[in-house]
Amino acid sequence: MADPVVLKTFFDKVDNLQDHYVERLREAVAIKSVSADAAFRDEVFKMGQWLVELFQKLGVSHESVDIGTQVLDGKTIKLPPIILGTYGNDPNKKTILIYGHYDVQPALLEDGWNSSPFDLTETPKHQLIGRGSSDDKGPVIGWLNAIEAHQKAGIELPVNLKFCFEGMEESGSEGMDEVILKESKRYFVGVDAVCISDNYWLGVTKPCLTYGLRGISYFKITVSGPGRDLHSGVFGGTVHEPMTDLILLFSKLVSPSGEILIPGINDDVEPLTEKENKIYESIEFTLDEYHAAIESKTTIHDDKIKILQHRWRFPSLSIHGIEGAFSAPGMKTVLPAKVIGKFSIRLVPHMEPDRVNALVEKFLTEEFAKLGSKNTLNVECAHGAKAWVASPDHWNYVAAAKAVERVFNVHPDYTREGGSIPITLTFQDALNKNVLLLPMGRGDDGAHSTNEKLDRSNYIEGIKLFGAYLHEVAAIKAD
Amino acid sequence: MADPVVLKTFFDKVDNLQDHYVERLREAVAIKSVSADAAFRDEVFKMGQWLVELFQKLGVSHESVDIGTQVLDGKTIKLPPIILGTYGNDPNKKTILIYGHYDVQPALLEDGWNSSPFDLTETPKHQLIGRGSSDDKGPVIGWLNAIEAHQKAGIELPVNLKFCFEGMEESGSEGMDEVILKESKRYFVGVDAVCISDNYWLGVTKPCLTYGLRGISYFKITVSGPGRDLHSGVFGGTVHEPMTDLILLFSKLVSPSGEILIPGINDDVEPLTEKENKIYESIEFTLDEYHAAIESKTTIHDDKIKILQHRWRFPSLSIHGIEGAFSAPGMKTVLPAKVIGKFSIRLVPHMEPDRVNALVEKFLTEEFAKLGSKNTLNVECAHGAKAWVASPDHWNYVAAAKAVERVFNVHPDYTREGGSIPITLTFQDALNKNVLLLPMGRGDDGAHSTNEKLDRSNYIEGIKLFGAYLHEVAAIKAD
Repeated sequence: MADPVVLKTFFDKVDNLQDHYVERLREAVAIKSVSADAAFRDEVFKMGQWLVELFQKLGVSHESVDIGTQVLDGKTIKLPPIILGTYGNDPNKKTILIYGHYDVQPALLEDGWNSSPFDLTETPKHQLIGRGSSDDKGPVIGWLNAIEAHQKAGIELPVNLKFCFEGMEESGSEGMDEVILKESKRYFVGVDAVCISDNYWLGVTKPCLTYGLRGISYFKITVSGPGRDLHSGVFGGTVHEPMTDLILLFSKLVSPSGEILIPGINDDVEPLTEKENKIYESIEFTLDEYHAAIESKTTIHDDKIKILQHRWRFPSLSIHGIEGAFSAPGMKTVLPAKVIGKFSIRLVPHMEPDRVNALVEKFLTEEFAKLGSKNTLNVECAHGAKAWVASPDHWNYVAAAKAVERVFNVHPDYTREGGSIPITLTFQDALNKNVLLLPMGRGDDGAHSTNEKLDRSNYIEGIKLFGAYLHEVAAIKAD
Repeated sequence: MADPVVLKTFFDKVDNLQDHYVERLREAVAIKSVSADAAFRDEVFKMGQWLVELFQKLGVSHESVDIGTQVLDGKTIKLPPIILGTYGNDPNKKTILIYGHYDVQPALLEDGWNSSPFDLTETPKHQLIGRGSSDDKGPVIGWLNAIEAHQKAGIELPVNLKFCFEGMEESGSEGMDEVILKESKRYFVGVDAVCISDNYWLGVTKPCLTYGLRGISYFKITVSGPGRDLHSGVFGGTVHEPMTDLILLFSKLVSPSGEILIPGINDDVEPLTEKENKIYESIEFTLDEYHAAIESKTTIHDDKIKILQHRWRFPSLSIHGIEGAFSAPGMKTVLPAKVIGKFSIRLVPHMEPDRVNALVEKFLTEEFAKLGSKNTLNVECAHGAKAWVASPDHWNYVAAAKAVERVFNVHPDYTREGGSIPITLTFQDALNKNVLLLPMGRGDDGAHSTNEKLDRSNYIEGIKLFGAYLHEVAAIKAD
């Protein structure tokens, strides 16, 4: 266990410096590093440079990886660099790789912000409102603040740190996979574990550690018939309609209560153990909160544990829509010649995208044959990503849990997320090291919404959490 | 039967004047009376004026009905008038009401026309290519040419004529229904039968009389769940998805071979008699022609009679698309909060829209209840129109059939159409008189396509047909 006196000194220093840290966040938020809009590309570069200058000030050695250009809004423009950093190089210390991103989502005052989105504004309830405050500038700067607090308190950092900060996370993480793969054999050599702080507490009061994410297989199924769209009055009743066939295929996929009907799909789902089941019981989460999030009471289950499990650890199938059919308001009597149905399956351990694709293709091909239609079917898996789950028993998680207890006096919830953060799996697979998702912000931060915020307490306690985590990592006996 | 000598004199005069008639059509085609585009509205008025001048020249008395204004492309502009005409007023003669329209579909050379669309061009195969040649300037002028030929041949027209020409047919027939209803008690009093020449032969060699059109009931079914669109990764598996419910409802409507599965829907379909069945046997129509039209071989039936019957005299159900779901190219993992499914049923005698709507609503409500979903369903019939069928035994049809025999030496096919021409039913219901659809052009005229044409022979023989029809109408003993 980390030395309580050392931690107390560090915590006090963070408290001392908190207004300074808020000013630093304000400076960062003021840089409009919107990666999705070519007009803001200079600002993304400016934000990268701002981080480099902070690195220099703190004595973090660094490299900027040029990842080339992209075509955006019809122009070829430079991609912002991936910034790598190293702080400490002691072979007797563990090395933790920290990932974060310095770009942000677009934001316009007229979208419904209560204050100028790039002007950090503290409310009477001490919420720091501004684009990027929680996603992901607060956490990124939090790590650097933790280093600074150590320096100012005269405490040696008990681990080596590596940093990997990208500027394109909100726009598809261009170039990231390649850089991680390449640097796993060079810059990231010696890393013992990875920590990503780019997600959120499940609720608003209790810290959590996130140890799992679902994967995805995205399908496009195309049914083609006539050579051109037809008028349903003239031709309806005489031709096999692609829409009819597609609807019938779609209807075989999933029940109204969310059960996937494709044979074999559920076979690879990891059985639920008593031990895992227990994890969900204590998690801070209520049905009311969930109903508020979906703005309705149309949940399939009214039981907290079932909702969490179906969100995190069971697969789901959603039908997203149809390309090629009539989709505008009003009435049109078209008989579409070719329709592309889109649906996806959220994958969980131990489902493999390849096997899922094979099962889906086989099933749909067989069902289509039963229709007796003269139309043509094509099944394409357009994207596949495995689920990710880490062991909460790994020292990386144990250290983080202890740090949560040190800072918040509570044992964290162990959460998963239903969606994918592809970078997580890339780090795990490329480095073959444990990856921890350690959130700083709360579930209601509104990362991609208007009035994105980071509570001052989450920011400041988060800096303490990051520092404490590094001390617990150092103190723990690695397996 | 009409006097063969009189007809011969009239036919000879038409043959004599044929180049003059082609020039007249050329003049009309040159007026770009595109009703859908505000920029061409003056040309629509110009075309109306052109017809009025021709009326004056021929001694047709006339009235222009002002139907007010419309908002088009953001501007309030005047609607072109509905032009009414009267030729002859002899109480001892029958009175036939002729309907046609003087506006045309849009046309641009760059859409793929082989010649300038408003410059009538005769090909070596004597096709008169130009926008509006067949739809509907050729037929409209055809009636006036027939009057002129009578005058020049010194033959008295054996019937009274009323005309009703509109300039908004290609843009929703604004104001037409109201005018027909109103004038049925005034201008159209005394009309014995109606003749509309605004459709086409089924094929390319054999004339036809069209005696039926299917109706339509158009449905919008809305399934609502969450208050906002959700991310399928975060929420998939925990909420009742509106798309899943809608797809399951859609899947209950129609089989891949076009059979409507809604209980009771088929009960009101008029039984097929031996006599009616015989009509289809002799109709000039081939499977190859139909495959060419749909640009595939995906017909449900490979039998000519079955295709025609399912096109004309059996109901059909087509699913058109979904509003509110993902419809763009690419991938999106949205879980739509509210989806509006659109489908329509083509109605045939003796299906009543009200009864169809009641059956559809009852069935969908029951099927939705079976799903056990917490989502909400709304079923709306957005539009309903009855089928129309006239008796081919009525003197109006018998006269037209005799006229076909006189001009083409063949008994016409009796056809229906699968789509609706709403004006037909409006005339029938408002005037309570028999309505005949008497086409001038061929099935391959490409009315709304590039390179619209009217064969010179269809134009010239069509003028003869119209005149002969009037003589046969006069000769026949009305019931």
